Order: sequence, then C-alpha cells, then structure tokens
Amino acid sequence: MAESVEQLRQRVEELERELALERSRRILGGGDGGGGRTRIEKMSPEVVDSNPYSRLMALKRMGIVSDYEKIRTYAVAIVGVGGVGSVTAEMLTRCGIGKLLLFDYDKVELANMNRLFFQPHQAGLSKVQAAEHTLRNINPDVLFEVHNYNITTVEHFQHFMTRISNGGLEEGKPVDLVLSCVDNFEARMAINTACNELGQTWMESGVSENAVSGHIQLIIPGESACFACAPPLVVAANIDEKTLKRDGVCAASLPTTMGVVAGILVQNVLKFLLDFGAVSFYLGYNAMQDFFPTMSMKPNPQCDDRNCRKQQEEHKKKAAALPKQEAVPEEEEHIVHEENEWGIELVSEVSEEELKNSSGPIPDLPEGITVAFTIPKKQEDSVPEVTVEDSGETLEDLMAKMKTL
Amino acid sequence: MAESVEQLRQRVEELERELALERSRRILGGGDGGGGRTRIEKMSPEVVDSNPYSRLMALKRMGIVSDYEKIRTYAVAIVGVGGVGSVTAEMLTRCGIGKLLLFDYDKVELANMNRLFFQPHQAGLSKVQAAEHTLRNINPDVLFEVHNYNITTVEHFQHFMTRISNGGLEEGKPVDLVLSCVDNFEARMAINTACNELGQTWMESGVSENAVSGHIQLIIPGESACFACAPPLVVAANIDEKTLKRDGVCAASLPTTMGVVAGILVQNVLKFLLDFGAVSFYLGYNAMQDFFPTMSMKPNPQCDDRNCRKQQEEHKKKAAALPKQEAVPEEEEHIVHEENEWGIELVSEVSEEELKNSSGPIPDLPEGITVAFTIPKKQEDSVPEVTVEDSGETLEDLMAKMKTL
Repeated sequence: MAESVEQLRQRVEELERELALERSRRILGGGDGGGGRTRIEKMSPEVVDSNPYSRLMALKRMGIVSDYEKIRTYAVAIVGVGGVGSVTAEMLTRCGIGKLLLFDYDKVELANMNRLFFQPHQAGLSKVQAAEHTLRNINPDVLFEVHNYNITTVEHFQHFMTRISNGGLEEGKPVDLVLSCVDNFEARMAINTACNELGQTWMESGVSENAVSGHIQLIIPGESACFACAPPLVVAANIDEKTLKRDGVCAASLPTTMGVVAGILVQNVLKFLLDFGAVSFYLGYNAMQDFFPTMSMKPNPQCDDRNCRKQQEEHKKKAAALPKQEAVPEEEEHIVHEENEWGIELVSEVSEEELKNSSGPIPDLPEGITVAFTIPKKQEDSVPEVTVEDSGETLEDLMAKMKTL
Repeated sequence: MAESVEQLRQRVEELERELALERSRRILGGGDGGGGRTRIEKMSPEVVDSNPYSRLMALKRMGIVSDYEKIRTYAVAIVGVGGVGSVTAEMLTRCGIGKLLLFDYDKVELANMNRLFFQPHQAGLSKVQAAEHTLRNINPDVLFEVHNYNITTVEHFQHFMTRISNGGLEEGKPVDLVLSCVDNFEARMAINTACNELGQTWMESGVSENAVSGHIQLIIPGESACFACAPPLVVAANIDEKTLKRDGVCAASLPTTMGVVAGILVQNVLKFLLDFGAVSFYLGYNAMQDFFPTMSMKPNPQCDDRNCRKQQEEHKKKAAALPKQEAVPEEEEHIVHEENEWGIELVSEVSEEELKNSSGPIPDLPEGITVAFTIPKKQEDSVPEVTVEDSGETLEDLMAKMKTL
C-alpha cells in the first residue's frame, strides 16, 4: 500500500519495456528465450519427450545413417528464402545442421501466404530476418548468417563468393554445399558462375510457373553438367522472364509442389552429407501424373563458362590418377548418345510403357536444363512440344527443334 | 506530471493485462488479431502484394484448375496432427479450404521438433489446440473444428462418426474427405470401419519406422480396396506395435520424408476436390533411391468388413445402371492376376529394368497394404524379403510366404 509515485512510475516503465519486447518477439514470429528451448551441447539418442534429437538419432539404430551427429559439422548456404528456400531452411534447422547461410533481398508479403513457413504477422519484414528469427527459435543449436541483398549485383556477388569460400562452420573454410532456391535465370547463372570458379558442389531446385511441376539437380563442377553446359531452353525459346513480373501477371504456386521439392531437395542433401542411399543427379516431379523422372548429364566440353571447362580438365586428371579398379565404374557407364559431340548423356529411367501411359500438359522446363523426355500431350493442346526419345535422337536434333520454336 | 497514485495503479494493471495477453498469444504460436490479417469475403485474382490468394487464383489463368474458388466449399477431416497431419493441415489452410476438422489426443513435445510445424514454445499444449491457433492466424478464412480425443475408444468413435457425417461446411452434411495421418494400425482400422459404414471416401498416409519411405492411398468404399481388404502384413508377421512405444525404443523420423508425404497427399486432395490431373490410388516414396511406385487395388469380395462388402454390392449396382459407354473403361482394365480369387489387382508402373537397377533396403511396408514390388536387396542383408513379381505370382503365394515369416 505504501507505494510511492516514483515506484509506480518505474513499474509502468518496466512493464512498457516488457510489453514492447513481447510484441516484437510475437511479430517476428514465435517466442525466443521465454518459451523456446535451451541449447544442447551434445546430440543424445535418449528416448525422452524432452529430447528434440531422439527421432533423428534413431536413424543410427535403424541402420540408415552410421554417424548422424556429423550433421553438426556441416555448413549449407541457401540462396533464395521463398517457397522452396524457407522450407528447405526449416528442414535443415530441425535436422540440426551446423550452420546455415541465408541470402535473399525480398520482403515477406501477404501474397506469399499460399506457401509454407512465413506467417501474415511477418508481412513487411525482410525474408532473411523473419526466417532467422523463426529458425533460431525452432533450433538454437544452429548457427545462422543472413545476408539481405541481391547476389546478382556486382558488389554483392563478390561478397557472396567470399562467404561461400569462407563461411564454413570454421571461419575461413568453404561451406559444404550451396542450395539454389531462387526463382529466376539470372540468379541461377550467378550461383553457377560462382560455384564453377570455386569448384563448389551445389544443388539447384525449381518449380514451374504453372505450379504443378518441379525439379532438383546436383551439380559437381567438372563431374556433372553445370547450368551453362546445356543451353537454357527458356533463352532459346526467347521468353523474356521479366514479363512474369509485370503488373497483373504472376506465376501460380502451391504449398504442395513447393513442399515436395523442398523435401526431395533436403532429403538428397542429407544423403549427400551423411552418406546414405543414392543421391539423385536430377529428379523431376510432375504433380498432374505423380510422375518422377530421373536422369544425369555429363558436362559439356565446349561449355561457355571457362571455369566449368577448367574444372572438367581437373576432374579428368584426378580420375586418371586414381588406382585402376576405382576408375573402372566410370568407364563402364552406358553411353546412350554415342554420336553426341558434347558428351552429354541422357539416361532415362522411365519405361516406354510408362511414357505412353502418361498424358497431360508438358511440365514447364527448368531453365538451363534440357529434357530427357516429356509427358506426351493430347492433340488439342497447342503448346509447342519438345521430346527427346531414348531411341537415338541426338542433342543436335533437339537444338534444331529448339531453334524452330 | 499531475498523475495520481490511483491513475498509475490503473495503468500498471492495464499493462499487466496486456502483457499477459501478449505472452499467451506468443506462446500459443504467432500473433492473432494484432499482426495477422483480416478475413477476406471473396477470393480475388488481383495481383497485388496484399492478396494471399493471387498465386492460387493464377492456377485458373495457367489452365490448371477451372474453378479454384470451389475450394472454399469443401470440408476435410484430418485424423492425426503429427508429422504428416500438421503439415497437411497447414497446406490446406494456406490453399484456403472451407473447413478443417482436426482429431488428435496427443500433446506437443520437444521430441516432435525434428518434424515441421510445431515450435518449442508450444511444448505441453494439446496438438489440436496449438495447431488451431497457428492455422487460424495463417488463414482466418478457414473454419476450424478440433477434437482433443482418441477416436479408437468406444464413445469417441461414435462422436467421430457423427462429426464425419454431419461436420461438413453446412452443418448436417458429411465432410468431403477424411485424411488418415495416424501412426498406428488401430487408428487406421477405426477410420476404415467408420468410412466403410458411411460410404465415405478417404485417403490414407504413412511413413515407415526407419523414416526413409512413405505412401499415400485413396480409398473409395466399394470401388477400391479398403484397409481390411488386404490382410495387414504387420499382423501377419506378428509384430506387436506396442513394442515401438516401449521406453528406450522409438521409431526414426525425418522432416523431409514427412514433408514429401504431406505434399503428395495434399496435392492429390487438391486434384480430387478441384478435378484436375490424375488422382493416384497408391503412391509410394522410397527416399533411399528416389523411387515412387504407383499401383491400384480392387476391393476383396471376401473382405472381413461387412460394410465394405455392402459398399461393393452397391458400387456394382451403380456401375451396372450406368449407360454402357461409360461402363466400358472399367471392363477394359488390364487384369494382371487372372487366377487371383480375391480380385485384387496389382498394377506395376515400373519397368523390369528399373527394378533391376534399384537396390538398398526393403521399404518398410505400410500396415494393411500388400506390396506390388520391392527394391531387390543385396545378399548380405539378412532382413526377410517379400517380393511379388509381375509374372504370375498370386496373392496366395504371397500369403504363404507371409506365414513363414
């Protein structure tokens, strides 16, 4: 009862500060500190409700992964924190990755709410800031480094290169993997250029503008085709990407397709980093038919990117230096297009019968990737069709067809 | 300056109330009201940053869906709000579904944090309460009805049946689809029993205990095999599911596999409700090999569930009453196992060569579903193997093999 006016004023100030803090926490997305969890020094396999890693460590007991804890030693860079990138970041965060580097220059908008991750109260915040806050709350054991800029501008591209080559778990070491989750050709080309120069392994992902197909691709410079090796169909077909950004014109998107693409991407990241299962070089997703084509492409010896050609030379030297029995598997690879002067190999893992049974619209082609096959279309559809059959159609034939589009 | 002690006391009380409210909002997960968005009466295709439906309505312009707004007229029940169910609910919420009915009796635990959706500050809350709060904040246009109980107990099962048959968008009408996202045989069987009795179409989903495979299945009572039509392998193999819940023993799980399964599930829900693409009757996901088998199964005329047999009779009558040209496609279906007395049809959409190229562990079999094929295993592996070849192996042969396990 004997409160002084001064004491009450102090209490009001204190409460106002706390309230402002609570509000900022809530608006940024999820609690930090108060409601979250404390950091965990060592991953434990103990099966108790309070252990966020028990179901992951169980992968060892199940015989899937031999050393799950190793996930904490890896750093992954994600370029693009949109419909695919944000879910990719969340999955890796929940898996307990060592470090995530996020690159994006966009802001959260209500128009993004048809995809997972961001919430309406985050509208207006930068995507990397909102993502970092939510992700740190989900798993405080992960290290985050975020960059709110466009990697395609000259000065930011240099900084991006520096962080890829120095932003590993141990500062000064390169990251272990770069993931492209961007939505345009220019940004994909920038990542390709950087990774070819640095000899940095990366994975590309994409979702079509009609929202019902997507793909992921693993690019090991010098070993598999880079983004510049196969001339991008979108350029050959003379489609100006900027038209997509015009007022009143926008691409469709679905949380389902984006979730599946993020899921198959991160699953392949885990297989790649933790050494289990078979990592796909290319995996497509056609949602209309639940059709998942796979293929692999060798690099183009005449690739426009000189660093790609340099990496190819280095890869050849390394392969030649290997003991003979280890080099054998590569020599035994089945070459489908013997006469193909570029050495690009298209391996169809889909039977003739499956192709015949499939129908529906052509999946939108991911930029920079030629297709191994397309879903046969019905006659009434008027969209131009490009098909590479397994039976002897060469890349030149395909290029000729592309030029007529 | 002339504040009275009384005014200051009132201000302190007011701030304390606001602070408590903010804290409860944050702890429940995301802002409601303050930071969220207001309700939208009519879905608009307008391309502005503030329109959460622009990218979905674009599906119409892209020629994928003819009437996207129809999504608002549907009610979907989700049983199980765990790793698959929560993401399923979030995807449907972001797509703007009319109504969601959620059933679960579990609490959020830190041990769930290796899967998407729930956040550490929600630990201890019931899953349906935490989910409803987050989902309502994401999209206030969706109607939510949540039930925090176990559908397998007698009284709750009756209530569950009542809500499935009356909880549609218009009270008194049935829901449009039931999704099973549960993790045990008993709950799947309860959903199967209810849906057979009500003639309710539903979709089943599941993820294996080693976390690297999953599946979805569409069940139309009387038309496709129900959960009781094919004797569950897990029972035949005498595995007691309760062993999985023992202290110190737990199944592995991954956000990737769960995200992919939720993604293919909701994609098929959208295709089913909005009438585009081809809905899969069964779609599997083997993460080790990025292998996605599909098949379809006809119902078993000797199914243990009398309501399944009744639905089969009704389906036959309906099919017979259809004009002849509409009934033709069903008669033309290719029967693989002519001598199969149960009429269960296994359609492999995977070539011999693909099967030959595949390797790795057998995907854990979803309970209640026989396999059309498995990934061939290497000899050194000692896990028992069950394989159904396309070339004439009958269901009896498979059953005999199962009994020897």
